[in-house]
Amino acid sequence: MINKEFLARAEELKPVLIEEEITIAGSDRVLEDGDEIVFDFGNHYVGYLSIDFGTQGNHPDAPLMFAVQFAEIGEELDQDLDAYHGWISRSWIQREIIHADDLPCTVKLERRYAFRYVKIRILSTSSNYSVIVKQLKACTVSSADESSLKAVKMSEEDAKLDKAAVRTLHSCMQDVFEDGPKRDRRLWLGDLRLQALANYETFRRNDLVARCLYLFAGTTLEKGRLANNLFVRPEVECDYQTMFDYTLFFIDTLRDYYRETQDRKTLEDLEPVCMKQYELLSECFDENDLIDVKKAGNIFIDWNFTLDKQASGQAVWLYAMNDLVFIEKELGHNTLSIEADIGRKKKAALSLFDERKGLFVSGESRQVSWMSQVWMILAKAVDAEKGREILEILEKESDAVGMNSPYAYHHYIQALIDCGEKEKAYAKMHDYWGGMLENGSDTFWELYNPEDPSASPYGGIAVHSFCHAWSCTPAYFLRKYYY
Amino acid sequence: MINKEFLARAEELKPVLIEEEITIAGSDRVLEDGDEIVFDFGNHYVGYLSIDFGTQGNHPDAPLMFAVQFAEIGEELDQDLDAYHGWISRSWIQREIIHADDLPCTVKLERRYAFRYVKIRILSTSSNYSVIVKQLKACTVSSADESSLKAVKMSEEDAKLDKAAVRTLHSCMQDVFEDGPKRDRRLWLGDLRLQALANYETFRRNDLVARCLYLFAGTTLEKGRLANNLFVRPEVECDYQTMFDYTLFFIDTLRDYYRETQDRKTLEDLEPVCMKQYELLSECFDENDLIDVKKAGNIFIDWNFTLDKQASGQAVWLYAMNDLVFIEKELGHNTLSIEADIGRKKKAALSLFDERKGLFVSGESRQVSWMSQVWMILAKAVDAEKGREILEILEKESDAVGMNSPYAYHHYIQALIDCGEKEKAYAKMHDYWGGMLENGSDTFWELYNPEDPSASPYGGIAVHSFCHAWSCTPAYFLRKYYY
Repeated sequence: MINKEFLARAEELKPVLIEEEITIAGSDRVLEDGDEIVFDFGNHYVGYLSIDFGTQGNHPDAPLMFAVQFAEIGEELDQDLDAYHGWISRSWIQREIIHADDLPCTVKLERRYAFRYVKIRILSTSSNYSVIVKQLKACTVSSADESSLKAVKMSEEDAKLDKAAVRTLHSCMQDVFEDGPKRDRRLWLGDLRLQALANYETFRRNDLVARCLYLFAGTTLEKGRLANNLFVRPEVECDYQTMFDYTLFFIDTLRDYYRETQDRKTLEDLEPVCMKQYELLSECFDENDLIDVKKAGNIFIDWNFTLDKQASGQAVWLYAMNDLVFIEKELGHNTLSIEADIGRKKKAALSLFDERKGLFVSGESRQVSWMSQVWMILAKAVDAEKGREILEILEKESDAVGMNSPYAYHHYIQALIDCGEKEKAYAKMHDYWGGMLENGSDTFWELYNPEDPSASPYGGIAVHSFCHAWSCTPAYFLRKYYY
Repeated sequence: MINKEFLARAEELKPVLIEEEITIAGSDRVLEDGDEIVFDFGNHYVGYLSIDFGTQGNHPDAPLMFAVQFAEIGEELDQDLDAYHGWISRSWIQREIIHADDLPCTVKLERRYAFRYVKIRILSTSSNYSVIVKQLKACTVSSADESSLKAVKMSEEDAKLDKAAVRTLHSCMQDVFEDGPKRDRRLWLGDLRLQALANYETFRRNDLVARCLYLFAGTTLEKGRLANNLFVRPEVECDYQTMFDYTLFFIDTLRDYYRETQDRKTLEDLEPVCMKQYELLSECFDENDLIDVKKAGNIFIDWNFTLDKQASGQAVWLYAMNDLVFIEKELGHNTLSIEADIGRKKKAALSLFDERKGLFVSGESRQVSWMSQVWMILAKAVDAEKGREILEILEKESDAVGMNSPYAYHHYIQALIDCGEKEKAYAKMHDYWGGMLENGSDTFWELYNPEDPSASPYGGIAVHSFCHAWSCTPAYFLRKYYY
């Protein structure tokens, strides 16, 4: 379903991207067929590249054919790109094969790339000439304005974490909040929610949050159900897929936005969308007010197919409903029926608590997982003291299903803070996100397994996104809770 | 050396290319990774392509990565392009690998191609979508104006030959007379001379001939020596290489141009350039007035490294000097000294005639070749009757070094005509050029060996030019001598 007014509002809010030109010197090295050379821009950038080629020898009598690869981290450059045949499309690998007909010349690449490194490999010149890369120029783009970034004096260690988080957010801020500027370059509700949190503490580009909310509200699925992500090119169109939790995060993101901006017009416009989701998702529960995972469909929670999502799904609903009550009250609506519903479903949630284990369990297998506990805490199904207790027990539960993504870790850190475990949250955050920096990254990743940083669920890191929105929240945590 | 006035004149004469839009329908076939589809434009074109892609399935969630190959003849499509590692740069192979980020879309390729066929191979989509090629649009370019082409009523067989010859010339006529629009896309003196001849009988784009003469005169090597070819992009610059015969053809080409146009200004401007070549090449002869092939440097004559070029080189000099005498006389200059020089060198040429064999021989090995006889006839070292006799003897001389290129065949046909053997010339022309048409080509080729049409001196036909200027002269022969 299309809501033209919402899409028109989103269009009004579309930012003009801020461009910055970054020029780096080339090399005196004379390059012949098969030669490779890597250039380092010194930081993570998103933008357009042009390459100045000079020649040596006689007038070029054949086109130059070269390959160019863009890499967010150095390790990408060592991959055998042709060997990648994983399930994520290999068209995401940032590389081109280009012919330049008339040399010397400046080759201006048309596509946008996310990169720190640029590797150029000469595939074919002729016996008459060789080439020199004289200069590389990047026209970088972002809707994040560096001059509006709040300066905060931090310890050296914290500043490092903050810098990479801010850079991650910066690179993902384009004409929408993208999940990753390398891949998928798309607006996802789950990522948006975390980006918005980091944005409020950093660039405060709040109009971009509003734009993204209007985009989701402007293009919905059957009956007005929010999609989990949407496309903005060539036309705005929502994806066909939904996720139970992502749908609910619209409510939370709107509530956060309103708290930050007091923008009552947007709250009024979008409140019916929240109520519509509440209404549609009410069908996902069984007669005991417990979520029916089959009816609920896809629930994300973490990049983890073995995770049972009953408990965490139930918790996310509770979590979002607290926000809905806030919104409804703010607009003077009666919330008695919603609150009664929350009461029933909170009770159902608590039925998942295994008194013997002292932990929440999920599904028929009564699975114990980190995410189930974390989300029950975030949903305030238990109080802070109980939450603390749960998290302590959890650490000793070696069979518990763990966390796979920075997205899951974010919620763990937030749960620790919500329980008053600020010091532990701080240490865990440094452990986890700091590990990515040790791997020489300027930004935080889509996926990070501290045990095996090069592991890939996709069949190869060539398609990994090493600058990924949902990983940018150390800037939010540090700035909101520690400075 | 640069002559700015000449280059300025060449720039004034630069044609505005005539553009024509050719649209062909795509296909309903739904293409997935690995699928290939070939489109046929039905004739040989030079120009720019855009491809309309549609999609099937869900909204594309990953870029489309596809390969596109352009082919002048069908056989090119069957080549293993990656297997080509010959000495001609593989950057000439007309292919690209392209990523399209936002689908559906029109992909507009930036480079110019020479083609009849376009093969598209889908390299990567995603599990969410497939593609359809909806339409291909070519913006074709040429400086040849079809509406100015002289209509001549011919027999069906002749019309076929003429059509392909005219198409070859048409595709090679760009902002200069190119040798081949696929490869090398460059102005060569040897090709220019033959293109000009065909042009006078067809498109009569005589300003383009003048432009090319001014370009050669405007950018010369040391002491004003003409290069054998020149580049016009990114700036006009002559190549560093010379050829004894190509240098001399400047004189012949100017003389032909003047005969066609009576453009006295150009004749006056460029006569000193002719005299300069005469002067510079006088150093290439020994004390017996015979060409010293070491001093003469590169002499082309044919694509043949075993051919001894003493006799044919001597003959080309004589051939061009007849033109120089004409030019000098036309401008009222004294030609006594040149004519005396011609007399001496003609005598030397005749010393290469082996009375026992009844043929000209060349070099220390006293090599007998077709080219030596042909050029001595064209140079009028012998009269028509003697020429006829020589060509008859030659046919029985099975050890004689033969002809490798359409360029060499052109001179053989001309020699036959010059000797009054018009019927034989006609039959030989049909045999040779007709063979290329039997191979399904719309144009005539750079190289053609009737015994083995797929043979390549380059190590693969992937880099062959199947529309090559020096092969366009059947249009000249038919229109000048037979209609």
